[in-house]
Amino acid sequence: MASQDARLSNTAGQVITCKAAVAWGPKQPLKIEEVQVAPPRHGEVRLRILFTSLCRTDLTFWKGEGQTHVFPRIFGHEAAGIVESVGEGVNYVKPGDHAIPLFTGECQECRYCRSGKTNICMKFKIDTDREVMLSDNTTRFSKDEKPIYHFVGTSTFSEYTVVDQACVVKVDPRAPLEKICLLSCGVTTGVGASINTAGVEPGSTVAIFGLGTIGFAAAQGAKIAGASRIIGVDINLSKKELAKKFGVTDFLNPQDYNKPISEVIKELTEGGVDYAIECIGNTKLMEAAFESIHDGYGKAVITGLDNATKRVILNPGQLLYGRVLTGSFFGGYKGKSHLGDLVQKYMNKELQLDDFVTHEMPFEKINEAFELLNDGKCLRCVLHLK
Amino acid sequence: MASQDARLSNTAGQVITCKAAVAWGPKQPLKIEEVQVAPPRHGEVRLRILFTSLCRTDLTFWKGEGQTHVFPRIFGHEAAGIVESVGEGVNYVKPGDHAIPLFTGECQECRYCRSGKTNICMKFKIDTDREVMLSDNTTRFSKDEKPIYHFVGTSTFSEYTVVDQACVVKVDPRAPLEKICLLSCGVTTGVGASINTAGVEPGSTVAIFGLGTIGFAAAQGAKIAGASRIIGVDINLSKKELAKKFGVTDFLNPQDYNKPISEVIKELTEGGVDYAIECIGNTKLMEAAFESIHDGYGKAVITGLDNATKRVILNPGQLLYGRVLTGSFFGGYKGKSHLGDLVQKYMNKELQLDDFVTHEMPFEKINEAFELLNDGKCLRCVLHLK
Repeated sequence: MASQDARLSNTAGQVITCKAAVAWGPKQPLKIEEVQVAPPRHGEVRLRILFTSLCRTDLTFWKGEGQTHVFPRIFGHEAAGIVESVGEGVNYVKPGDHAIPLFTGECQECRYCRSGKTNICMKFKIDTDREVMLSDNTTRFSKDEKPIYHFVGTSTFSEYTVVDQACVVKVDPRAPLEKICLLSCGVTTGVGASINTAGVEPGSTVAIFGLGTIGFAAAQGAKIAGASRIIGVDINLSKKELAKKFGVTDFLNPQDYNKPISEVIKELTEGGVDYAIECIGNTKLMEAAFESIHDGYGKAVITGLDNATKRVILNPGQLLYGRVLTGSFFGGYKGKSHLGDLVQKYMNKELQLDDFVTHEMPFEKINEAFELLNDGKCLRCVLHLK
Repeated sequence: MASQDARLSNTAGQVITCKAAVAWGPKQPLKIEEVQVAPPRHGEVRLRILFTSLCRTDLTFWKGEGQTHVFPRIFGHEAAGIVESVGEGVNYVKPGDHAIPLFTGECQECRYCRSGKTNICMKFKIDTDREVMLSDNTTRFSKDEKPIYHFVGTSTFSEYTVVDQACVVKVDPRAPLEKICLLSCGVTTGVGASINTAGVEPGSTVAIFGLGTIGFAAAQGAKIAGASRIIGVDINLSKKELAKKFGVTDFLNPQDYNKPISEVIKELTEGGVDYAIECIGNTKLMEAAFESIHDGYGKAVITGLDNATKRVILNPGQLLYGRVLTGSFFGGYKGKSHLGDLVQKYMNKELQLDDFVTHEMPFEKINEAFELLNDGKCLRCVLHLK
């Protein structure tokens, strides 16, 4: 590691030329290009990315359906790496620190950060339309002197990337980066949706809609929180066995029933579950989740977004009697404040990550990884950049 | 009072013939009829109604737009009176007790009642379609031996009515029934929507959509809870002055702006209010309330229903970042457990009711009272039945 650190420090202050997977247009295969990564400016950190996994949000914005088109762009936000160099005014990390980039930052100073009520930061909240660094509205990536744009302030499909210091968390160097990279998005989102946002309690019932990484992580969160029954809903039968590993007690395939799955869930649970968590980003499933909870105090939580033109349609009669609908963004965890704890939980075997890594590939095969994810054939595919 | 009690007890066990305002069909003027009121059966209580006010829900079901039609029916659910007689197995009240009927009951035994998380009772939750007593699925009202149906288990537009003992709360006999009748629906709903469901905190900002009784009560609740800014939204300019009495700090008329009122509210409050409460039962205003709260931890609360066919349409992108949408039914107060406290708060001048009573009329003028409410010309019109 010492030699690696030394190599990193040699590049401080210089433009680094490295490989990145550039998206040149919607749905066009990513192209591994030699790009230039400018040094970090004031308050910024340049990271060497060692592992990045793929998340559905990358896929959504790469497809660009109903979303603002920003191209050429470097996607990627679920990753882990090592600090290569830091800009002026950065005292939170130093070169050689192990770190996870945060697509939703934490300034620790704004009204929201200080409220104790939310993990959303007024300044560094995710902004999928923003294609530049917040500090000066320019990009650190270029090729042939033409700008390549950032994605959610992380752009981890690159050997090197620049992030704001509000958007990076230092982690225990003993933790395996190829595993804890998963904590920078999906697993944290799911676990926290159950534990923090839904507030699952011992003995409660939970329905999870969609058994991908977020869904399985939500099941794991519900199990950690002591749920007595965890109903997993998915049309992909291959998920059934794996689901048990993550705590799912009942697997339901909506295609097995000739009535809405919410009705099936209500019959199984004396009127509805205490908590329902939508883990796909599909407005029809968000509605189904809402309809699956009981009145009085049932709570439905969404964890992702659909095509931006889609809407959730609710019967206010189902709202009036105390049902709650809300969203969980990054599981309600504050990246800088809480992610270190999750890393420790993984190291203490209180939180499991290994079963989420179904595939590993060299970075160059990123388009194959996109296909796997698009076809629902993987949970997490971790790309190795070193 | 002694002579009155004596008179009451003389009728125990007998059918009482008395006046009631019968709705024979949707939108048909109510007709004051002589009706027969059967004695209370096991677990039931017969009340002499002394005062009843009108609430928009009565109007909604009388109009019957998008609702199940149940006629002939005796509406009315906001009232106060005296226990005339009780059926077998009733030990909660006795003849002569002052009482308020509850359109949403409290069995104090079911999973919900014991949960401590909701005021919805699994057994006696409001059911606007139910037209009979829950104990035996028959009606206690008749005329010429033909049934007349109940409404929400209270049917207070009658000199006598029968309610389940789960649907009545005993109150301090020193409290003026002509005022505390308002606590059996609208005022409690509004005050509790702010205090219990929204959870308004000292220094927080609140927007109230619709300044009728519930809206003004919500403003009062927000003021009691210490809100620093209470924005009242109504297109009726005549509400502006009265609004100040109930704590409204900013009155907004959407017709004064050529942009959505939620945009105006966001500009006034650095991105949105902490809490927004919809107090009309209009799905467009529910959406506006939701759009007026800030992300992170803003909470929107609905307190009533629209035409049953209407839906609330939400952008999931506004849900994901922590906004909460929920409903407040009867302000989150449990009728039997909490209404006595509100009566005491009124008597201690911690809660004001008097300004809500804008009109008083003899029972026979009930159709005039309906018109006043329909035209938005009153807050509460209290009908005197004695």
